[in-house]
Amino acid sequence: MTEAEFIAALRAMPLHPGARDLRDDVARLGALVLTTDTMVEGVHYRAADPPEDVAWRLVACALSDLAAKGAMPVGVLLNYPLKSASEDGGRWTTRFLAGFGVALSHYEAPLLGGDTVSLPAQAPRVLTLTAIGEAAAAPDRRGARAGEILYVTGVIGAALLGFERAEVDPNAYRRPVARIADGIALAPHVSAMMDVSDGLLLDASRMAEASGVAVEIALEAVPVPPELAHDRIRALTWGDDYQLLFAAAPEAVLPVAATRIGNFLTGTGLTLTDHGEPVALPPELGYLHRG
Amino acid sequence: MTEAEFIAALRAMPLHPGARDLRDDVARLGALVLTTDTMVEGVHYRAADPPEDVAWRLVACALSDLAAKGAMPVGVLLNYPLKSASEDGGRWTTRFLAGFGVALSHYEAPLLGGDTVSLPAQAPRVLTLTAIGEAAAAPDRRGARAGEILYVTGVIGAALLGFERAEVDPNAYRRPVARIADGIALAPHVSAMMDVSDGLLLDASRMAEASGVAVEIALEAVPVPPELAHDRIRALTWGDDYQLLFAAAPEAVLPVAATRIGNFLTGTGLTLTDHGEPVALPPELGYLHRG
Repeated sequence: MTEAEFIAALRAMPLHPGARDLRDDVARLGALVLTTDTMVEGVHYRAADPPEDVAWRLVACALSDLAAKGAMPVGVLLNYPLKSASEDGGRWTTRFLAGFGVALSHYEAPLLGGDTVSLPAQAPRVLTLTAIGEAAAAPDRRGARAGEILYVTGVIGAALLGFERAEVDPNAYRRPVARIADGIALAPHVSAMMDVSDGLLLDASRMAEASGVAVEIALEAVPVPPELAHDRIRALTWGDDYQLLFAAAPEAVLPVAATRIGNFLTGTGLTLTDHGEPVALPPELGYLHRG
Repeated sequence: MTEAEFIAALRAMPLHPGARDLRDDVARLGALVLTTDTMVEGVHYRAADPPEDVAWRLVACALSDLAAKGAMPVGVLLNYPLKSASEDGGRWTTRFLAGFGVALSHYEAPLLGGDTVSLPAQAPRVLTLTAIGEAAAAPDRRGARAGEILYVTGVIGAALLGFERAEVDPNAYRRPVARIADGIALAPHVSAMMDVSDGLLLDASRMAEASGVAVEIALEAVPVPPELAHDRIRALTWGDDYQLLFAAAPEAVLPVAATRIGNFLTGTGLTLTDHGEPVALPPELGYLHRG
């Protein structure tokens, strides 16, 4: 079963109105915004990654979903698997906790609770963080309209570069930033917003699909690191940058620096151009979970 | 690192006031109550258990924590690992979803959201459910006072019996009940409440410790199935019954049937008696997660 099939099956369950039909990154409950993220050893991080970095990324990824809704963090819940000490489980956990504390302090996101379970020594760790925030508006990813502009903050591909060439900017992959302040500032000015977690092309196509419009992206307009200037497609299909991707009206005056990279149009689907010339879409637009 | 050491380390993190110092089963956020539960294949359920039952237990265990706080379910978040179809992953998932939908409908707990991840085919499944409820009072497990009575609802050991001898009452283990209505009715009358998930003796000693008092339990008073009448210690150290355990003043008039099984006293620790005679405590009071 693919992720899309699984989510389609979940839509047949009793859904809370705040679930946003499972088409957004968060759920709403009054003024609260809820999001939950699971990371699997060997899938979302490498077994050899420093545990402090894994903890940071777990926190930053979940809080990035809050950022994309213009939400201020309220608190987090941690689900953590304890392994037997024979596997250096104690040492890994001690280092994980050190990084976790640093991330919570940095984002002023206090711990609300969680659950601890035993995991067999040979099993990959599965870490879950649920983050709760408070937001006035909480822009949906379904709000983009034809005629609006697609913007992105920052540089796309920095995490890819940091992953492959840690000497360039190790923190871009290891210590991604949840853009909380930017998200809060942007929220009143956008009609749709999400974070770029699975690849710019995939995430932009998801925003367009959820909004019932088409999106056209100008490849040459997307800010990428100089090292990837000739490898733009790869930068745009890799995830983990956690920049904010949003739709805004042409006349919107934005309080945060962002680059105009495309347009929303009537219709469906994603088209890609390079200096006005059509470019074929790559076979994979980003990172998809498969089952 | 043991679970107790892990939780002690978490207490050094920035904690939300609603975390209740990580000494309760839930967190509070205004009128909301939050709890999260993780179940691991091979640890919390058997790989051969029917997937429909696993889904039901996942929901019931989390909602039982809400019940113990007198909370009405508002919604749940599901973190689910998709495995490759080669491992019969699709069939297991389809059956899990069927049971999940039945449980959500039964408890009127709509889905709010969640996260889906890929898991290697050979890895044990790790399932997380976060439940959000709404409660007026939300009795803490720290509120028992010396002079109060310890009560429990229902029969203790029914899940053990259902686990070992499914022909007697298969549902007691496979389809535990979250006592939502009982919890809501009891909440205004109790000074401390929790569910019995890890074993009555362990959970009662936790309530006493969290409350800063001692507790004395009369072994012969605890309702057990007739089949376990001569095996009471085993019934009282096995978990999964999800009955409600609570402290109330001697003069309290209870709106729900419950059995008086002990007393809270000044001091610390748990003592056990059988018809007034002291009984040695078993080496393990219940189910402890080890790391």
